[in-house]
Amino acid sequence: MTYCVAMRLRAGLLFASDTRTNAGVDHIAQFRKMHLFHIPHQREIVLLNAGNLATTQSVVSLLKQRLTEEGPNMLNVGSLYDAAVLVGKTLKEVVARDADAEHGPSQGVDFGANFLLGGQIKGEGPRLFHIYPQGNFIEATEDTPYFQIGESKYGKPIIDRVVHYETTQLPEAAKCTLISFDSTIRSNLSVGLPIDMVLLRANRFEEPMKAHRVGADSAYFQQLRKGWGEGLRKVFEGLPDEPWFET
Amino acid sequence: MTYCVAMRLRAGLLFASDTRTNAGVDHIAQFRKMHLFHIPHQREIVLLNAGNLATTQSVVSLLKQRLTEEGPNMLNVGSLYDAAVLVGKTLKEVVARDADAEHGPSQGVDFGANFLLGGQIKGEGPRLFHIYPQGNFIEATEDTPYFQIGESKYGKPIIDRVVHYETTQLPEAAKCTLISFDSTIRSNLSVGLPIDMVLLRANRFEEPMKAHRVGADSAYFQQLRKGWGEGLRKVFEGLPDEPWFET
Repeated sequence: MTYCVAMRLRAGLLFASDTRTNAGVDHIAQFRKMHLFHIPHQREIVLLNAGNLATTQSVVSLLKQRLTEEGPNMLNVGSLYDAAVLVGKTLKEVVARDADAEHGPSQGVDFGANFLLGGQIKGEGPRLFHIYPQGNFIEATEDTPYFQIGESKYGKPIIDRVVHYETTQLPEAAKCTLISFDSTIRSNLSVGLPIDMVLLRANRFEEPMKAHRVGADSAYFQQLRKGWGEGLRKVFEGLPDEPWFET
Repeated sequence: MTYCVAMRLRAGLLFASDTRTNAGVDHIAQFRKMHLFHIPHQREIVLLNAGNLATTQSVVSLLKQRLTEEGPNMLNVGSLYDAAVLVGKTLKEVVARDADAEHGPSQGVDFGANFLLGGQIKGEGPRLFHIYPQGNFIEATEDTPYFQIGESKYGKPIIDRVVHYETTQLPEAAKCTLISFDSTIRSNLSVGLPIDMVLLRANRFEEPMKAHRVGADSAYFQQLRKGWGEGLRKVFEGLPDEPWFET
């Protein structure tokens, strides 16, 4: 499985993805699920993927291969909306090819994949999209400032409690995201370290856009895991026991 | 959907279930998912259910109806293992009847259901089983002292962090369970208050076995939600921001 989160806040955008893939418990591997498309001072686009690895790799390979070909590509489309259309179209193209039952057995395999696509293209504000396996997509709003794909449930409560479009700053969002990953990794073997993370401040177009990799040896992540676990435990112990059960 | 948790600790057993059912968002109702079978000082059995409501109601109705008929029933089987066999068999009987495609269309409906069955029958220790939709089942051990059915993922991290077979006392387990429900209810509309909860001390056979109902008006639950939310927020704010992002 996989766990990816992306947020669009007033302060900017955050993207994070784990790196574990599995086809059964005896076929676990490490793959990057974060891909960057960048023109200095002009556009910053981040793509996260979850789902069938053959599908997601093919979609990313085609998107990259077409950067130097004629026609619309990730570096020349006029808006992030058009980039989302392009990813959706490429996804449908790959699934139609691989799942083509007329020319080979699909053997019940799920060829589906989900993508999170966000960033900023000069001339418009930061935007964030969730592209579904069917190729259609939704856009994040101020009411719903984050999307998750993959094993999303374990790490959702902490984000729901902490993240708000207007007030959450990017370093705080990064802290919340790493705690969300910690909860997920503890409860689900199919999500694993390291974590790739990108923070993009709104309207900055920093150079170079850089993905940070947070591994088991990250002192900050270790500190966060320890502090969070101990803090939770302390809050838990400080709360009263339920009163209707006399021992 | 549904959320149910049951734990078997050295100190005893805990059972908790929400009360919301839904067949689509426009068909939400309230049903008790906890059923008690009890002989004073002799046996205490609790059954929790998740899944197709027609199936789970039928299973419970048949189990109750047969209490006064000949043959094995929940009040005369010799062990909790045999009670699990009985629930599994009754589940298969109901699904075979309702999903019988020869005599009517099943229209793609999932007739499946999961049950948690636990308690104590005099002569053996406290036991806890998870009965699968196929009617087979597994038993909780000291290594894996709790089971969840229904919307289990949101509320799993807190249980994984806090509950241990040897050391967790029942009031502490109840506190953890209510926090686990709070996280689930906040993140998933298909799980709702009130919560039914039973605590059974090992080898006590108290009379009467009593299910407590925890609703939105429960002062203790309100205190717990508030204290937990504020405590989490405080722990979160006390942790350092990630260091590789200079503002």
